[in-house]
Amino acid sequence: MAAVAAQMASELKAGAIVTDVGSVKGCVLKAVGPELPDNVHLIPGHPVAGTEQSGPAAGFASLFDDRWCILTPPKDADEIAVASLEAFWTALGSRVEIMEAEHHDLVLAITSHVPHLIAYNIVGTANDMEAVTQSEVIKYSAGGFRDFTRIAASDPTMWRDVFLNNKDAVLEMLGRFSEDLTALQRAIRWGDGDALFNLFSHTRDIRRRIIDAGQDDAEADFGRTHED
Amino acid sequence: MAAVAAQMASELKAGAIVTDVGSVKGCVLKAVGPELPDNVHLIPGHPVAGTEQSGPAAGFASLFDDRWCILTPPKDADEIAVASLEAFWTALGSRVEIMEAEHHDLVLAITSHVPHLIAYNIVGTANDMEAVTQSEVIKYSAGGFRDFTRIAASDPTMWRDVFLNNKDAVLEMLGRFSEDLTALQRAIRWGDGDALFNLFSHTRDIRRRIIDAGQDDAEADFGRTHED
Repeated sequence: MAAVAAQMASELKAGAIVTDVGSVKGCVLKAVGPELPDNVHLIPGHPVAGTEQSGPAAGFASLFDDRWCILTPPKDADEIAVASLEAFWTALGSRVEIMEAEHHDLVLAITSHVPHLIAYNIVGTANDMEAVTQSEVIKYSAGGFRDFTRIAASDPTMWRDVFLNNKDAVLEMLGRFSEDLTALQRAIRWGDGDALFNLFSHTRDIRRRIIDAGQDDAEADFGRTHED
Repeated sequence: MAAVAAQMASELKAGAIVTDVGSVKGCVLKAVGPELPDNVHLIPGHPVAGTEQSGPAAGFASLFDDRWCILTPPKDADEIAVASLEAFWTALGSRVEIMEAEHHDLVLAITSHVPHLIAYNIVGTANDMEAVTQSEVIKYSAGGFRDFTRIAASDPTMWRDVFLNNKDAVLEMLGRFSEDLTALQRAIRWGDGDALFNLFSHTRDIRRRIIDAGQDDAEADFGRTHED
């Protein structure tokens, strides 16, 4: 991104808005900011929408409808430029939220980056079994596994770069995930049914709240069905 | 299950077939077998199909279409009884596979039980953040997290019992998952992009094979959309 910014810098009109749609935002501010002239507005953005498919052909008309787009302007950003970019995303059907780049990277580490990492990981683990064949993993994937394979089919180059560029937040969230998983493992080993039941009841609520907030996967599924 | 078997034992007709649809099979053979008279056929079964919804109202007409149903007859089972039960599931639209109960429990540990456990776990971890609010987790769940909330909304009583009754296989598979996750964590910490890219490329193939095998979630999604 720094290289592209450097290349286009001299061609930018005064007052132009420069934005992006990458999944990590702190590194964009750091890499792109110094390459741009002072008379343009850098406002990084991240539309939280999409499927495991990549590229222009993976788009569909309702892709951004009711999905959130996060803008992470620097502290001294021009308010009119931010409002213009907000209007752009709103016109595409998105809802817009403004936050600091650092906070964005923390929020997305837990809502997107770590979920992708553990999906890639379980699919890798299942691939490497001796006692269970690949063909069995595929046949019986409807028991839960297949939900993970969908996000583990996401673009490898993009996701490599996400993890390399949001290292600290991902490692922090992954540390918490592992601690919690160790506690669950212990509960299973000791036959502590109450601890399991309590967690499993608790996690149900958040699903209901996602559906209530219109963020369930009905629309994305629809787009996906057309792609497959 | 043992209590129910004991209660119905004296009412069973000679030659009757007794089966079940539970998610763990070794414990069913052990618990139910001794309670039944010698002149009935115990053939445990497990249709690998369903959504996160429970109970009769969560059924839909295509629920079993092209999904696998695993039967785990004991070694000395009557072949005609097994064939009858196989015909029953085939008539419901299922494909049928016969395997030993112990192998079933290992296969399902990796294709269903551990995926559910890590889904419950990530949702629990996300719930307990201080730096990221619940409302943020919900708003930005379209980045990957929401896929996990669906299976983490499964019935808490049933899943508690799955983990308590398939302890050894689940702990074995969970151990492998954690080892692999530690290696990934290390790759991120050291900025080893090649290790990340290699795993992420590898996991893509298995998704394609699940779609080719007709085990993707289009049908289940369809049922689910009607439920929600």
